[in-house]
Order: sequence, then structure tokens, then C-alpha cells
Amino acid sequence: MGSLDLAGTYRDLHAHPELSLQETRTAALAAGYLRAFGYAVTENVGGTGVVAVLRNGPGPTMLLRADMDALPVEEKTGLPYASTARATDDLGNDVPVMHACGHDVHVTCLLGAAEALAADTSTWRGTLQLVFQPAEETGDGARAMLDDGFHDRFGRPEVVLGQHVSPLPAGMIGLRAGPSFAAADSLRVVLHGRGGHGSRPEACVDPVVMAAATVLRLQTVVSREVPGGETAVLTIGALNAGTKDNVIPDDAVLLLNIRTYDDDVRAHVMGAVERIVNGEAAAAGAPRPPEIEPTLSFPMLVNDAAAVEVIGRGFTEEFGAGAVADPGPVTGSEDVGFFATAAGVPCVYWLLGGADPKAFAGATDLASAKKIALSLPSNHSPLFAPVIEPTLQVGVAALVRAARTWSARTD
Amino acid sequence: MGSLDLAGTYRDLHAHPELSLQETRTAALAAGYLRAFGYAVTENVGGTGVVAVLRNGPGPTMLLRADMDALPVEEKTGLPYASTARATDDLGNDVPVMHACGHDVHVTCLLGAAEALAADTSTWRGTLQLVFQPAEETGDGARAMLDDGFHDRFGRPEVVLGQHVSPLPAGMIGLRAGPSFAAADSLRVVLHGRGGHGSRPEACVDPVVMAAATVLRLQTVVSREVPGGETAVLTIGALNAGTKDNVIPDDAVLLLNIRTYDDDVRAHVMGAVERIVNGEAAAAGAPRPPEIEPTLSFPMLVNDAAAVEVIGRGFTEEFGAGAVADPGPVTGSEDVGFFATAAGVPCVYWLLGGADPKAFAGATDLASAKKIALSLPSNHSPLFAPVIEPTLQVGVAALVRAARTWSARTD
Amino acid sequence: MGSLDLAGTYRDLHAHPELSLQETRTAALAAGYLRAFGYAVTENVGGTGVVAVLRNGPGPTMLLRADMDALPVEEKTGLPYASTARATDDLGNDVPVMHACGHDVHVTCLLGAAEALAADTSTWRGTLQLVFQPAEETGDGARAMLDDGFHDRFGRPEVVLGQHVSPLPAGMIGLRAGPSFAAADSLRVVLHGRGGHGSRPEACVDPVVMAAATVLRLQTVVSREVPGGETAVLTIGALNAGTKDNVIPDDAVLLLNIRTYDDDVRAHVMGAVERIVNGEAAAAGAPRPPEIEPTLSFPMLVNDAAAVEVIGRGFTEEFGAGAVADPGPVTGSEDVGFFATAAGVPCVYWLLGGADPKAFAGATDLASAKKIALSLPSNHSPLFAPVIEPTLQVGVAALVRAARTWSARTD
Amino acid sequence: MGSLDLAGTYRDLHAHPELSLQETRTAALAAGYLRAFGYAVTENVGGTGVVAVLRNGPGPTMLLRADMDALPVEEKTGLPYASTARATDDLGNDVPVMHACGHDVHVTCLLGAAEALAADTSTWRGTLQLVFQPAEETGDGARAMLDDGFHDRFGRPEVVLGQHVSPLPAGMIGLRAGPSFAAADSLRVVLHGRGGHGSRPEACVDPVVMAAATVLRLQTVVSREVPGGETAVLTIGALNAGTKDNVIPDDAVLLLNIRTYDDDVRAHVMGAVERIVNGEAAAAGAPRPPEIEPTLSFPMLVNDAAAVEVIGRGFTEEFGAGAVADPGPVTGSEDVGFFATAAGVPCVYWLLGGADPKAFAGATDLASAKKIALSLPSNHSPLFAPVIEPTLQVGVAALVRAARTWSARTD
Repeated sequence: MGSLDLAGTYRDLHAHPELSLQETRTAALAAGYLRAFGYAVTENVGGTGVVAVLRNGPGPTMLLRADMDALPVEEKTGLPYASTARATDDLGNDVPVMHACGHDVHVTCLLGAAEALAADTSTWRGTLQLVFQPAEETGDGARAMLDDGFHDRFGRPEVVLGQHVSPLPAGMIGLRAGPSFAAADSLRVVLHGRGGHGSRPEACVDPVVMAAATVLRLQTVVSREVPGGETAVLTIGALNAGTKDNVIPDDAVLLLNIRTYDDDVRAHVMGAVERIVNGEAAAAGAPRPPEIEPTLSFPMLVNDAAAVEVIGRGFTEEFGAGAVADPGPVTGSEDVGFFATAAGVPCVYWLLGGADPKAFAGATDLASAKKIALSLPSNHSPLFAPVIEPTLQVGVAALVRAARTWSARTD
Repeated sequence: MGSLDLAGTYRDLHAHPELSLQETRTAALAAGYLRAFGYAVTENVGGTGVVAVLRNGPGPTMLLRADMDALPVEEKTGLPYASTARATDDLGNDVPVMHACGHDVHVTCLLGAAEALAADTSTWRGTLQLVFQPAEETGDGARAMLDDGFHDRFGRPEVVLGQHVSPLPAGMIGLRAGPSFAAADSLRVVLHGRGGHGSRPEACVDPVVMAAATVLRLQTVVSREVPGGETAVLTIGALNAGTKDNVIPDDAVLLLNIRTYDDDVRAHVMGAVERIVNGEAAAAGAPRPPEIEPTLSFPMLVNDAAAVEVIGRGFTEEFGAGAVADPGPVTGSEDVGFFATAAGVPCVYWLLGGADPKAFAGATDLASAKKIALSLPSNHSPLFAPVIEPTLQVGVAALVRAARTWSARTD
Repeated sequence: MGSLDLAGTYRDLHAHPELSLQETRTAALAAGYLRAFGYAVTENVGGTGVVAVLRNGPGPTMLLRADMDALPVEEKTGLPYASTARATDDLGNDVPVMHACGHDVHVTCLLGAAEALAADTSTWRGTLQLVFQPAEETGDGARAMLDDGFHDRFGRPEVVLGQHVSPLPAGMIGLRAGPSFAAADSLRVVLHGRGGHGSRPEACVDPVVMAAATVLRLQTVVSREVPGGETAVLTIGALNAGTKDNVIPDDAVLLLNIRTYDDDVRAHVMGAVERIVNGEAAAAGAPRPPEIEPTLSFPMLVNDAAAVEVIGRGFTEEFGAGAVADPGPVTGSEDVGFFATAAGVPCVYWLLGGADPKAFAGATDLASAKKIALSLPSNHSPLFAPVIEPTLQVGVAALVRAARTWSARTD
Repeated sequence: MGSLDLAGTYRDLHAHPELSLQETRTAALAAGYLRAFGYAVTENVGGTGVVAVLRNGPGPTMLLRADMDALPVEEKTGLPYASTARATDDLGNDVPVMHACGHDVHVTCLLGAAEALAADTSTWRGTLQLVFQPAEETGDGARAMLDDGFHDRFGRPEVVLGQHVSPLPAGMIGLRAGPSFAAADSLRVVLHGRGGHGSRPEACVDPVVMAAATVLRLQTVVSREVPGGETAVLTIGALNAGTKDNVIPDDAVLLLNIRTYDDDVRAHVMGAVERIVNGEAAAAGAPRPPEIEPTLSFPMLVNDAAAVEVIGRGFTEEFGAGAVADPGPVTGSEDVGFFATAAGVPCVYWLLGGADPKAFAGATDLASAKKIALSLPSNHSPLFAPVIEPTLQVGVAALVRAARTWSARTD
């Protein structure tokens, strides 16, 4: 392989995570390598985004994408390269930061693939359009790059390719045609109580209790209102109210995240959330109605069936049939699809196994592997820690193979 | 009256609140005035506490106490002198600060009384021991001053006197013999879940839901386990978990505050909290048991009956019989009692009306006034705003009268 | 003593409990004895009520009252004379019946006192008006007897006297001036869902979940909306929904019972219940609003202070000062007060200890006895079982002494 | 068609529903018709079951099955032939009874098919084994008939055929290969509190509140512990506690019903129920642990793929391709599979549309029809009312066609 120290780069990125739209160090690091590999690099696209272009004669323009941002999670892996970073979030709070979603893997692998593809231009043709995207976690990044004139400035791709590391066994690729990643909607809900002295709740409307009742009642959306055969996840990722034991605060703030695969189910869940939030506030005697503000909305990510067949053949040749499987629709979400939808071109986005294969002893198929994965630290966990190899090598090889396969295809 | 601008001092203190054990500006301001009035002043007693002594011949040593600290509350009164202060709390968080409990009234009134008593030494005899105490809100201040050798350094008082502003009508004094302020206990509860991706709750144990169930179940302690005729308040003043909509956090933190008037009720409530917190964690499948850590414990404040009779007579002469009433036992708590208990001497601590008397039109007695007070911003509310007068004048007069009355008493 | 076998009569009554307004056997048994003792007996007053009059020259008319009805509780005492009775309740359900509230003690003691007073007319003067009242548990009995022309038919009494057995130590009398028994209000709440197949909750509105959320939220009325120093109890005594595991029912029915001591607190609690019930139904998406129907409303029972002093002196002479104490206001309720209120005369109603004194070893006063009583089976428990003696003898003696003391009083 | 008045028979059955294992009138009615049609009829198989056999030369033995029992639901359809029946259930309660699941349709259609197949033996060959099964709703009926020597007495079939009416449009058939109906498990949970007086909850452990907390917490099993892409339904069909507003009962009884499609999900849900029920009882301070008793357990119903293809071809010829569709796996459950599993032969069980086609105006496919069906009264609803035609004619034709198609098949 090339000169890039994959593992070293990964550890460095992991130890230096950056919040959404703050990915300046990551972007600069990527831009430096990409220039060294010979790419034409443009920085600050849609904020902190980086676009690297390499032309290799006639042939398809292929967009390969990695996302760069990390999460406000306090790392607990105990790894030598664990993050101790902190940053100021959008609300002005000082928060810990961790690559708990594995975007460091994505950046590393795309850099590795960038080097390999630049090093051997005989195996592919056309134009590479490498995208290092900011702010996937907030759903802002792809849109921001497109709004910043991506297609006009860099041209319209013919296909959008990318990958996400997951708790499947390292060495394995999960690839699926059709709806593959869920639609995601986030809501910020502010419940208004009336604060006062902790010893005199009778003179207050307690927003902590209002929030607790709301959280419990929201569980019934999925348990009672969504058909058993449909997919919906409703998570309250944050509930914050008060700072002092003997002060009843004025308000409580909830951050909700919703995953669905069907427009009607999505609409029903959104309506049910509104109904429950308002009903619980009414039950509490809230002095004024809650505020419900959408903060993020991703559509479902649909992999193009024909394109998946093309890329899937390449993967099978590269990794063997046993290493490529349909993971079923996952409840994760992705804004990579915006690049494809905006261009009206197919998207192929796959799962890259990142969990230690030793944990899956006895798993005979993907279904049993998925069950074992339930007990492993998932993406967004403070314990999320992909094994470095074979994860990185497979991730590089998958991107390289995808580009070569696509550029070699004949319709 | 004297040279002290009561209203101006109050507004200045109100605009510059300081968190517990950070009351350096307040302490310096008080010390400056006290020296100017002729007191022997010692600063930094028990941290930021100030003790001012004035000897006036033979006679009783009388401790008059004001507390100085403010709360992490964001002021919403809209007053010209509203606080915009922020500070760093014990956990390192940047928080707003407000005199939401009225300790600025206490400091102002004790300074006013200090001036008046120093100015006319013919009306009292003995020794004044004025205490400007830090950290009442955290329950640390009185203990810290006592631990710093208070009695050895300044002598043992014969009586402990003080007042707390409240949403009774300004002009009114609430005075009661026997148990008057509740015992208070605070607990910090950490509920342990297992964090991960918001879209994959099945791989997590959701601490937000665990906290919500715990908060709702804790309501049953007072509603089902405390006899109707007993007093108990259990407030969860803060519930904080998570920072991001699509990340299930590892933990949730609850800050509880408990008020009781009976040792057995207190013990039962404390036991019930532990039982419920553990039971709900078990129901949730928590990976490890919750942590329950006591963070504050005040005993009940018991006013000495004989001393109350003495002081009450003085108040009736000063303000008229209609202006002095028994407010019943309140659920508020106070650490002023530590000064009395440690010295083995009587305590007399009263409520000072601070609410606009116009709000009480139609109230014929204290019972009806208390009901009206339910709809007024209470202490600890972001809207708490005592009317400046007659609150301050009555507060000064009450302290002065209490000292004169006590020094004039013959057993 | 007389010919009445107190213990035998009690055991017989206990073994044959009757629901409210079905007390025909009890009434007939009482009427038989009363006639044998020489009283003028009228049956079927206000349904199944019995009034027995004995004139003994000039002097006050004194109403002594016992209630007769039992409860739909399945006895689990294992006593030889335990009830195995069943009856059809107002809703047509077949239910178990038990004297779980001790009205069998009341009837027995009033019969014992009837015999004693009739046997020795030298110790009292005036007219005895013994009332064996139906339907105290439903709040209908006293009103029904008054509506049936009680005062016109039997004359207006000068005082109303009576007692209730309680888990205080047998041998002890609890007597208190002023508000002594709480106001009681009962509500029947029907929550409307939309039933259907247990496997398809998405096509239903689940009333079981709606009821559960409502029950939990109702706990906050007492825990958050009633001042710590006020008395309020809100019990949901019954929650019934559905009969089959795989059928989601249409409705859920809740029976609520509320105890308060203050009109404003009562009004607030009633309003909060309505607000919460409606808010939770709205949160659930109920197809139509809940029905909230008052089914019972007792006022507070206030013992007349002057009359309590008279009777209390008699009790102290009879039982010794140590056996008579102020139990404080209890959360129990009573409709005996209707007889007094309707006549505009004083009421004196006391607690009769019924618990085994051995259980109270170590109790030094009533406060500590009350705490021990918390762990004993209370009235309405399936395990409620007063010790037969000294309960019955003290109960008879208290009624006799009360009548003698009152008739001997000189204003 | 033949002499059987389909609509009249249906209305008669509908007006005379019978609870599980009490289907004597239904069984007698069926037996009478079947004998008249020329079948060899055996009654009282596995309780109230009826088996009718018709031999028609060599060829396959085909089991056609209808279930006969109704549900304890109070009919609210307002139909002229609505049920007003009541019966005594297993617990001795008097309950309303309704054919809320449509088993009256099943019986009617199988009688119609019985007549048609007997009337024209030229269109099929082999042996018909018609089964009118009791107690499908309790999961006891199929097992009881098998335990009663079904195979020994009537021979082993070659295929098991049957249908269930559903809120799909009448005229439509839902047929699916593979897992088609969910596994079902029912649990009876008794929560133990400690009863007593409604005014003294402090002397009790309130099972109503314990049940409410348990019901709400059980919602989190599906909302938090089952992956978004898996199917699970957890319904608490009944919650019963108490009969009187002012008596806190001893116990609460919950009837749970669980639907799953995966053994691991099933095991996890069952474990989570146990964990939550016990955790909530511990949080409540229950005097003893809850009882959790399995009352029903159905396996998943898996339609044989090859057999579905055979029967599906017949349906398409009979009704047209547009009238036959794959409804996806439903959350309903069925014990018809026991007949197939016990014999080791294929099962083909389909959904028969029963909802008024006019309600589905605008539905372009089964997916949109299923969404419209969400707002229609579902099976088990008190409003469930299939349209009589074309439901019955299609139901008869489907059974007839299935038998003819199977007997004509050549492997």
C-alpha cells in the first residue's frame, strides 16, 4: 500500500474529534493529504467541507463521500488514543467530544482510497469527486455543501458512493437494495412550568414532573400506535431541567429523534408526539403551551437497485460471497442521499463491519450476528470502538473496488 | 434614619448576586459599612463569612444573622435592577445567578439595623454579634462558620435572631413558637443506563426513560406513603440527561430535596426514595445500581417558645397586633438554627412579609393571605421580587426591635 | 352486666355482613333486641334504618348512633367467625362482603349501651334516640333517614353522640374538639378508548394505558399541588378495564375517593382531578371526553368544642386521663355529622381503640401508638380484626357514660 | 347455490355467540346441517368440537377448519341481529358475549362449502375432513381435538386449509407464504399490595398505583427493547383491581397478550415483562412478589410456500389476480397450525376480506387498503361487523376452490 499510515491517521483523528461545523482540524488534515496525493482540493465548501477532484480521462464522475463530525459524548473506552476533547456546543455549553459514530473511520478510509486510486490510474477511468462532509449528525452538512453550489462548482456525479462503520463483524460488508436507512426527524420540545421554591410546589407548576410524564407517555407512540410490522423508533436523547435541588425550574427541554420508513407512519408519529406533548402539558396545568420545533429532517435513504447489483458484484469478487450480505433496513439515517437526490443519480451506501470478529463466534449468518451485535457497544455509545483492522483495510478496499467497478461498468 | 441608602443598597446587592461560598463582593460591601458604623469586623470566617461585634456595656450577647448567597436561577423579573450575572458552579457549569431567595433583603436589613443600633446605644445593652453568613442554600455556611471557631473567637451568644423574607404581605411579620421550618435533606441520584445510538435503543438501556419512570414513581412517596396529616415535600429540582437528540446517554442525574417535620416521616421518606430508585433501576435492567448520595441535611428549626413570647411582645408593640401572626410551620428550611443549637441557646427566626400588599385585597386573615400567596411568585422563582418598601423598613425595624426587646428583658 | 351476649352478638354480626342499604338482617336483629330492652322501635327509616326511643322523664334528647353496613371486601382474617358472605352490588356484580370497617362493633356496642341505659334509668334523664343507620360507606344513610322525616317523626335531639372503632390500642379513646374527620368526595370516572384486537393496538385507543397514565398523574395532585402543611388524600380504590387478554376494551372505570380538611384545598383537588383526567384523555387521543360523576360528598365532621369538653370530662372519670387523648384530625370521614348539622346541635364523635394492646408495647404516647398502628391492618383491610375485649366493653361504657354525662350537665 | 341460507345462518350464529368450550348450540347447528348434507359427523371431539367426513374415492385427505367460539365483548354495532347474549366465564363472572372475531363467518362459510362440495363430487376427489373447532380464542381448541385422538379417529390429512375474516375489503383474499400469523403468549399477572382504608394509604401498599406504574413501564418493552425492524406487540387486555372507591384493594390482576415473530424477540419480551413486573413491585414495596402465570402459548403460523403456490393459483383463477394479495405477516395468531404441525403436513391459511368495499375508495393497492383499515373497527372491537356479502360468498368459494385445487394437483 501507499504512504498513508492508516492506523496512525485513524488514531490521530479519533483523539481529536470535532463537533458539527467545527471540523477545521479534520478538514485541514484531509486537505493536506489529498493535495499530496495529487487531487485538486477546495476547502470551506458548505462551511468546513472539503472537495477533492482527480480527473482520469473520459468516464463517469463518481462521488465518494466521508463525513467528518463527532458527537458530544464523553469517551469511556479507555483506549490509549481515547478522546479527552471538549468543545462549546450550539447552546454555549461546554461538552465532551468523541468520535462515537465512527466518522474517523470514514475519513481515514476515504483518504486511504484516495491515495490508492491516485497511485494506480490504470484500474479506473473518469473523474473522482471525493467529499469530506461536515455536520452529518445535525443533518446540515450535505445540504450546506449543495447550497454552496456543489454541482455548479464541481460537476454533477453519475453515482454517489459511501459507507458507514457499524457493529457488524469487521471484514463484513452489509449492502442492500431499496430503502436502507430510515427517515429521521428531530424535535426540540420546551415544556413550560412555573418555577419556584422546592419546598412550595403548590405555588409552582413542576416542569420536571411534566417532562417525566411526557417521556413515559411518548413510549406509547411506538408501543400502541405503530403497527407491529412497521418500523418506528422514538428516542428522547436529552432531557434537561433545573440545576439546583431546592429550586423548581421554569422549563424542561427535551430533544427527540424519530426514525421511520413510511410516510404515513412518520406523519402519524409526528402527530402523536404533538398530541401527547400538548395533552401532558394540559394535564399539568402548564401556564402556556409547549414549543415543538423541528431541528432536523432526513428523508429515507434508498439504495438504487441496479447500482447495488453492480457494486455488489464487485464486492463479492473482492471479499467473497460470504462477506457481503443484506443487513435489512436499519434504523440509522444518513444525509448522503441528498447528494444523489439533488443530482438525480443513484446512491449506493453500505455498512462496513467494525466489531471484533472474535465476538461473533458461533454466528452462522447475518441474523445471528445482528443479535450478538445487540450486546456490543453501538455507534453513539461512549464505549464504541471499532477494531482498527481489518476494518480500515476493508473500508479502503471497498471504496476502491466500488470506484473501479463503477467506472468499468457497461450499461 | 441613618446614612445607609437602604433601597440603593438592596438594588445593588440584587444586581450583583453571588453563588454559595463565592460571596466576596457582598461580604466586602457589608464589612465596609459595618466598619463605618463602628463595629469590630472579622472577614473570611468559614470562607466568606463576616462577623461584626459591637459592645455596649454589660448585658446579653445577641447574635443577629443574615445569609448572603444567591441561586443559580435566571432572573425574569424585568426589573431595572434585575441580575444578569453568571458564575461557574461547583460542577464547572456556567450558570445564571439571581437573588431569587431574598438574601439581598436580609443583608440590607441587617446593615440597616446595624447602623440604627450603633447610632443609638441608649435603647439596648450588652453585645451585638452580627453574622453575615455564606452558603445557606447549600446548607454549608453556618456549619462552616462554627467549624471556623465562631464561639471561641466571638463568644457564645445568649440568643440567635434572624428573619426570612417571604410572599406574605409586606408590613406583616410571621412568628411562631415551636417547629417552624422543616428539616431538609438533599440527595444526588445517578441512574446508570447504557448509552448508544438513538436509533438502536435495543442495544442500550435508556436512562432518560429510567429517570422519567423514577420521577413519576417518586410522586407516590408523598401521595401514598405519608399520612394525610403529616408534612412532607419531595422535589426533584433537577433532572439532567443527554445533550444530543440522536444519542442515548449513559446516565441521568437527579437532584432531590426533601422536607419533613417528623423523624419517622423523614426516615420513611428517605427509605422510600432508596427503594423506588433501586426498584425502577431494576425494572429498567440497569447495568449497575444507582448511586444515591446525600448532599445536604438540615434539622428542623425549632423556635424557643419562651423567647418567641418575649420577641413577639416587642413586635406587637412595634407593628401592632394585626401585623404579627403565626404562619404555621412552613416547608422552608434554614441552617440558622445551627448557631443556636451549637450554643445551646434559644433561636427566634421569623418571616418578613415581602409581597405587595395590594395583591392581598380581600384577605381577612393570614390563612386567606397564604392562599393568595400561592399565586404570587415564590422564593426561588425567576420572578421573585419583594416590594422594596415597606419590606426593608419593617425588616430593619424588626431586627432593631428584637435586639432592644431581648436586651431589656428580665427573666 | 345485662343479658346481651356482647361477644356472641359481635361474632354473629361479623359473620353476617350486609352491603349498604341491604342491612335487613342486621336491622331486624337490632330491632328485636331493642324491643326486648323496652324501646319504642321504628324500622325501615330511610330504607333499612332503625330508630329506638326511650323516654326517661324531662331532660335532653340525646341521639346515639351506630352504622350498620359492611363493605365489598373478601375477608382474609382466618378467624373462626370470618365472613364468607357474598352479595350483589349496585352494578349487579357478585361481590364478597366483610365488616372490614368495624360497623359490627358499633352496632354491638350501641345494643350493649341500649340495654345498660334501659336497665338503670336512675343514672340519666331525658330521652334516648338510638339510631342504627344504613349506608354510611356510600354516604347515603344519614341523609336518607333525615329525608325520611327523622326530626318530624322522632324529635330534634340536643346532641349527637357516636364512635368509630380504629387501630388505636383497645382501651383507649381518641377525642378531639374541632375538625376531626375529613370531608370526603367520591368520583366515578369513565375513560373512553376504542376497543379492538389485542394484536392491533394501532387500530384502537387503549383505555388500559390511558387509565394507567391517569392514575400515575393523579398522584401529583397530592405530591405537587397541595401545600405540605395541608391534608389531602386521593385514592383510586378501583380501576377496572377489560376481561380478556387479547381484547383491548372500549373503556376503563376508575373510582376515586378524596379526603380534605379545607374548602380551598378541596376545590383545588377536585379541579386538578378534572384537569388531569381530561388532559390524559387528550394525550391518549380518546375518541370522546371522559365522564366524571360525583358519587358521594361528605362535609368535614367538626366536633363541638364545648360539648367535647363535657363528654371528655366524663370519659376521663370513666377511663382515667391516660386513656383519653386527642388523635389529631384523621383522614377518615363520617356522615354522622348530618344528624347534628340538620338539627343545628353539637356533635361529639370519638375513636374507639380496637387494636390488640400488646402490639403497642413501647409506645409512650398517642403519637408513637399511631406510628405502630401504621403497620397494623387498618379499617377496610381484609385483615381488619378488632380484638373483642376490651373493645366492646369500652365501647359500651363510652356510650353509656356519654349519655349519662350529657344528661347530667348544667349549662 | 344450495339450500343453506348463508345470510340467515350467519345472522343466527351472530345473534347466539358462545364462549370458548361452551359452543354447544353452534356445534349442534353445524352437526345438523352436515348430517343433512351427507357427511359422517362426530360430535364432542375435544369438548364441543365437530368433525364431518365425506369420502369421494381415492385422493388426498383435506382438512378444512372453522373455529366456533366468541368473545366476552359487549356488542355495540346496533345491528338488528346484534348479540345480547351473556354467559359465565371461567372465573365465574357474568360477561357479555359477541362474535367480535368473526368466527360466525368461518362457521357459515365452511357449512356453505360443505354443502357445495357434497352437492358436486365431480369437481374434487379424495376425502374431506371438516373441522369445527372450539376454543380458538383461548388457544385450547385445536390441542384439545388432537389430544382427543383426532388423527387416530379420523385419519391424517394431507393438507390443512382455512381462513380468517379481517378488515380487508370484502371480495379480497390475503394469502402469504412463510410466517403469516404471529406467535402468541398470554400471561396472567397478579400484583400483591396490602389493602386497607382509602383514607389511610400510608398503612397500605396500593396495588392500583403499582399496576398503573407496571402498565406504563411495560410500554417500554416494545418502544425501547425491540429493534425497530422486528415485530412485537404487548397488550394488557385487562387490568382489574378493587370494587369500592374508599377501599384500597389487596391485589391487582393484569392479563397480558404478546405477539412476536422471532424466537429471540419472544424470549427477550417475556424476560423483560418478568423483569419489569418484579422491578415495579419492588419499587412499590410489595409485601410479596407478583405471580406471573402463562395462560396461552401459540407458535407462529407458517404457511407452506409450495402449498400456497398451488392454492394461490386456484384463487387467482377464481377471483382474478387483483383480488389476491400478500398481506404481509399479521400480528394476529392462530392455533389452526397445530393440526398441520401434528400431522407434519402443509398448512394454507388465508385472510378473507370482510370490510365494506365502499370504505376503501381511493385505495390503489393492499398497502393503502391496510392503512384505511386502521380506522375501521377491527376484529375484537364491539363494533366489528363484516358486511354479509360478498364476504360469505367469497368465503364459501375460497374454501371450495381450495379443496378442488388441492385435490386436482399433481406433484
